[in-house]
Amino acid sequence: MTDVNLTAILYKKDDMRLEDLPVPEPKEGEVQISMANVGICGSDVHYWTHGEIGDFIVKAPMILGHEASGVVSKVGQGVTSLKLGDRVAIEPGVPCRVCKYCKTGRYNLCLDMAFCATPPYHGNLARFYTHAADFCYKLPDHVSTEEGALLEPLSVGVHACNRANIGLGDRVLICGAGPIGLVNLITAKSRGAADVIITDIDEKRLEFARQLGANYTLKVTSRDPRVTAQQIEETLGQPADKTIECSGVASSIRTAIFATASGGCVVLVGLGAADVELPIVNAAVREVDIRGIFRYVNCYPTALSMVASGQVDVKPLITHRFKLEQSLDAFEAAKRGEGVKIMINCERK
Amino acid sequence: MTDVNLTAILYKKDDMRLEDLPVPEPKEGEVQISMANVGICGSDVHYWTHGEIGDFIVKAPMILGHEASGVVSKVGQGVTSLKLGDRVAIEPGVPCRVCKYCKTGRYNLCLDMAFCATPPYHGNLARFYTHAADFCYKLPDHVSTEEGALLEPLSVGVHACNRANIGLGDRVLICGAGPIGLVNLITAKSRGAADVIITDIDEKRLEFARQLGANYTLKVTSRDPRVTAQQIEETLGQPADKTIECSGVASSIRTAIFATASGGCVVLVGLGAADVELPIVNAAVREVDIRGIFRYVNCYPTALSMVASGQVDVKPLITHRFKLEQSLDAFEAAKRGEGVKIMINCERK
Amino acid sequence: MTDVNLTAILYKKDDMRLEDLPVPEPKEGEVQISMANVGICGSDVHYWTHGEIGDFIVKAPMILGHEASGVVSKVGQGVTSLKLGDRVAIEPGVPCRVCKYCKTGRYNLCLDMAFCATPPYHGNLARFYTHAADFCYKLPDHVSTEEGALLEPLSVGVHACNRANIGLGDRVLICGAGPIGLVNLITAKSRGAADVIITDIDEKRLEFARQLGANYTLKVTSRDPRVTAQQIEETLGQPADKTIECSGVASSIRTAIFATASGGCVVLVGLGAADVELPIVNAAVREVDIRGIFRYVNCYPTALSMVASGQVDVKPLITHRFKLEQSLDAFEAAKRGEGVKIMINCERK
Amino acid sequence: MTDVNLTAILYKKDDMRLEDLPVPEPKEGEVQISMANVGICGSDVHYWTHGEIGDFIVKAPMILGHEASGVVSKVGQGVTSLKLGDRVAIEPGVPCRVCKYCKTGRYNLCLDMAFCATPPYHGNLARFYTHAADFCYKLPDHVSTEEGALLEPLSVGVHACNRANIGLGDRVLICGAGPIGLVNLITAKSRGAADVIITDIDEKRLEFARQLGANYTLKVTSRDPRVTAQQIEETLGQPADKTIECSGVASSIRTAIFATASGGCVVLVGLGAADVELPIVNAAVREVDIRGIFRYVNCYPTALSMVASGQVDVKPLITHRFKLEQSLDAFEAAKRGEGVKIMINCERK
Repeated sequence: MTDVNLTAILYKKDDMRLEDLPVPEPKEGEVQISMANVGICGSDVHYWTHGEIGDFIVKAPMILGHEASGVVSKVGQGVTSLKLGDRVAIEPGVPCRVCKYCKTGRYNLCLDMAFCATPPYHGNLARFYTHAADFCYKLPDHVSTEEGALLEPLSVGVHACNRANIGLGDRVLICGAGPIGLVNLITAKSRGAADVIITDIDEKRLEFARQLGANYTLKVTSRDPRVTAQQIEETLGQPADKTIECSGVASSIRTAIFATASGGCVVLVGLGAADVELPIVNAAVREVDIRGIFRYVNCYPTALSMVASGQVDVKPLITHRFKLEQSLDAFEAAKRGEGVKIMINCERK
Repeated sequence: MTDVNLTAILYKKDDMRLEDLPVPEPKEGEVQISMANVGICGSDVHYWTHGEIGDFIVKAPMILGHEASGVVSKVGQGVTSLKLGDRVAIEPGVPCRVCKYCKTGRYNLCLDMAFCATPPYHGNLARFYTHAADFCYKLPDHVSTEEGALLEPLSVGVHACNRANIGLGDRVLICGAGPIGLVNLITAKSRGAADVIITDIDEKRLEFARQLGANYTLKVTSRDPRVTAQQIEETLGQPADKTIECSGVASSIRTAIFATASGGCVVLVGLGAADVELPIVNAAVREVDIRGIFRYVNCYPTALSMVASGQVDVKPLITHRFKLEQSLDAFEAAKRGEGVKIMINCERK
Repeated sequence: MTDVNLTAILYKKDDMRLEDLPVPEPKEGEVQISMANVGICGSDVHYWTHGEIGDFIVKAPMILGHEASGVVSKVGQGVTSLKLGDRVAIEPGVPCRVCKYCKTGRYNLCLDMAFCATPPYHGNLARFYTHAADFCYKLPDHVSTEEGALLEPLSVGVHACNRANIGLGDRVLICGAGPIGLVNLITAKSRGAADVIITDIDEKRLEFARQLGANYTLKVTSRDPRVTAQQIEETLGQPADKTIECSGVASSIRTAIFATASGGCVVLVGLGAADVELPIVNAAVREVDIRGIFRYVNCYPTALSMVASGQVDVKPLITHRFKLEQSLDAFEAAKRGEGVKIMINCERK
Repeated sequence: MTDVNLTAILYKKDDMRLEDLPVPEPKEGEVQISMANVGICGSDVHYWTHGEIGDFIVKAPMILGHEASGVVSKVGQGVTSLKLGDRVAIEPGVPCRVCKYCKTGRYNLCLDMAFCATPPYHGNLARFYTHAADFCYKLPDHVSTEEGALLEPLSVGVHACNRANIGLGDRVLICGAGPIGLVNLITAKSRGAADVIITDIDEKRLEFARQLGANYTLKVTSRDPRVTAQQIEETLGQPADKTIECSGVASSIRTAIFATASGGCVVLVGLGAADVELPIVNAAVREVDIRGIFRYVNCYPTALSMVASGQVDVKPLITHRFKLEQSLDAFEAAKRGEGVKIMINCERK
């Protein structure tokens, strides 16, 4: 196979192929990027194994990948913010820029968002890719392209902690110690949370969370959300001020509500069943707000500054590394649930 | 029966009696009030017919009534804000003043709140009653004591609309056209809502809502929340920016979520079943927040200014009037679901 | 003179001419508008009489006018939100859409804003004009193009009251009863302000304000801001919760601070001298915030809904009407300080 | 001199005396505290050297001291939150608990605040002192009473950073590297500020600030605020997102405005002249808000958690230590401007 622009394409459920495509040319306002690193996200794997996520269905071949970084290899017309050779992190969604959500600072809710590797939009697990220049963030010299790729999951933590309004001195509960739970842990601590307790059913994940700075961990063993909530409160010495639910499991969402102090909030990051039975009277009369998140908005600059300033070290999140040519192996590893973050390097050997 | 201080006491479920009690003396910081008007609330009726609401159980005889107004008849030590003869509206809950909720402006969440006619605290459906002076609000001459008593339900609307952050130009959905739906309607319009649509299953209630200013009404006929939500959107021309759910019915809460625009919120005012199955993924990925309310906090001054400034006319809410001696008749009428607001006058003939 | 596209052009200070220009063609995303009405703003007059405002200097001929409405006469490529014949209000500033201000919902602070009749950008006092379609707001049938033009000053009131966070029951002080003071009055009342007091040195303006709904007016006669503040407090019965300063006069800004309650805010709308001596300790220790505004952001939809829903009647603000051919007369009248709002009709006879 | 309750009393300007007073008894809701440590604040020194601060005038002998900690030595009636022997930090102001500011979570603006060592209220530089129990915060075993006393200045930083809404990734300018500048530095970093630049005219103070974590320091040498602002912007690589002004010097306040990015804010902590000439047009059209602070509100719990969780180390702020008997020497040192924080130990030898 020639390799002008080796690309990982999902044809349909269980059918991902590496193919050589023409190199795309940047349009006005865009840059062409020689891809460096692309992390695998749960959604990438889910599209591969199921061919769909909710209403998003893979109906035509779609390039995978959206946690990405690279090097500017060509500059489109009108672009002045970037130049050839700039190393950049790529925020994967480009909104319409004209709707009310775009104008009011909530572009993540834009209905015409083109988001990498969300049908019908292509991702960037390839040698070359083009993107709106203003959604590419120049990395300082001391920030690696691997860290650049990690800004994507980190931005989820930034947005969730924004929505939870985590503040100095807060006691925070994080449900779920997978990659998203971990970026929320990192972000909550960076915002000055006094104590973070993180829950999971996997002791190895909890051990990893402790290494990343969790003050407390709790292995969930009870099937009764009220019992688990009671354990959390006893560990913290009080209910959590704010809670970030990253598991998407119904019982965990119920635990999240019971374990949160009156006047606090539960932010739903993890999603599972479309409908969940919630203890709504308990939440309502204690004014515990329930807030979801959709991706992130205006979070890349913050995530970049967290990494660039040295406040956080995200590199330990990367537990596996593959080359673009090994993409299938990488996806197989991800499917087996190995490690925390699997990174694919797209640079030619 | 002598009538030094005729008082409506709930002994237990289905056992309300009118008895003569000694006149209470005001403690330091309190005033004694010669009661003028007390509205009947659904919770009063519920305690009478069930002897309990959730965890609040009537274990000892309890005086009913908490939507109240009266005239200062004695001034306790240290009180300088009120004087003999002042006509006042009575905010029925007095918090502990020392906990973190009291100090941070959310005293409605105080765990040591003494709230009228919520066990074990007495209400004020009587000739005389004593209350913390700073939770009594002097009525201007042109505001009647009936209007003063109505500040209580109106404050629920003020708090709910605060929590929903209803603003100028908003399209608002209110689910349920009972008394609480109506005070939310009034308040939403006062905050500048452009369009308010209100739903109910009772056409007479909807007619009443239209008279009070509802721009649109919808009689709910479908059992499918998505269908009802679609009807609401078609009527408004777009989804609601914010929704206030006052029915507490599970299907209506689901409708509320589906009918609310991305980035909006649903405020839960009405409460029914402890657990409700919610379309949580729909709410989360569209960042539709779910927020409950507990009573009200710092809302009486606003409610009073709404009435005193002439912005709103709450008097039409009163559809029935009784004397204190007729309290049983009044509660029977309330139990039958008659009218909108039933008012009991506590003044001697 | 032929009249393909009669246009009012400011060549330099004191040199405004009516000339015939080619009709502009809409670019991608734009519409061509057959202009209907353009209001004269103080800034239009100031450019004409001074040739500059602050750092904005008229260095090349510039078309005047930015309070405008019209009818879509041609639709550019890619525009789907508007069609031929739509009557629209024109929000005069089009931001860059890519900077952090544009992305965070504060596009009014965009450094690359193209704003009508602010050098070097042309305005729309002409027969024909082209504009970004998403900054044109379709008027419902019952809203006139004169009202459409008035959405511009009304949006200033909407933004200022947003920044002041005027709410239900607020006591509001507005300093200055010119057009901008009046749109703030209208907006504050629409947001539920209980009492609005407005000050000026011109009794006729105050009379106009009373007709538009001001609860109180005060003719400023003292040179001592503390004395004026005391008069305001006596009139309101308490200090103002929030204050909107529209005069730009130093003594009035000082009055605004003294007259505002602790914990409130003063929003600066009117601007005069670059430097003003402020009672900064008084403001600081009472936590009275001082906030400026720059134009408006995301306010046109709100302003339009205020007018379309019938909440406010802005038509009385128009006191003079001229035809495009009479533009010089219109500017002369504006220069003499006549009336409140002068409207120029751009339609052919 | 007997020493039942040795106490530092300010009789009038320049007349501070150590006298033996009776031990005060705790009233209902109060505790008696055996004092441990009291820090000297600039205001203590100012009362001593001037006999007044603004409108607060020492008209009768007043006990000094308000940055304090101690050990509960007697428990008043009704107190359940504390017990004999508890080590506590003392929040020095006790508000009225009944006014609108107390009820809305802004008790620092309460007009009836009794604040230690602010005339006519006594402070706590003594062996024994009584205080409202709910404004005493129990220290965990690993937090010293010196750290407890430092919660007072730290709370000023917490409140200022709350008002500035310092957040993750912010670039922050702090003007003035005295004790208050330093606690703001510490707090801003704890909230996740990416970069903090601090200015002063004293190189030694800047050196101290660097040791405490300042990313950049600038010795102010220009008399032109625009020049200094330009130097700040060049150092940060961009204007500051938010600025905290701790010097109270007019030129520094002007610098603060010029150096702050559009849409940001300047929080005024340091206060000097009552009136200051501000570049108000520059601030207003860039929507740079100007916000003052008055002491702090609901900040002690946050400050305590910062210290107790190990996020911050405030101990280096203490540069001098004296015994209660040496109070005059301590005040002399403070007057000479020595060190950063001077701590007086009130325990018997």
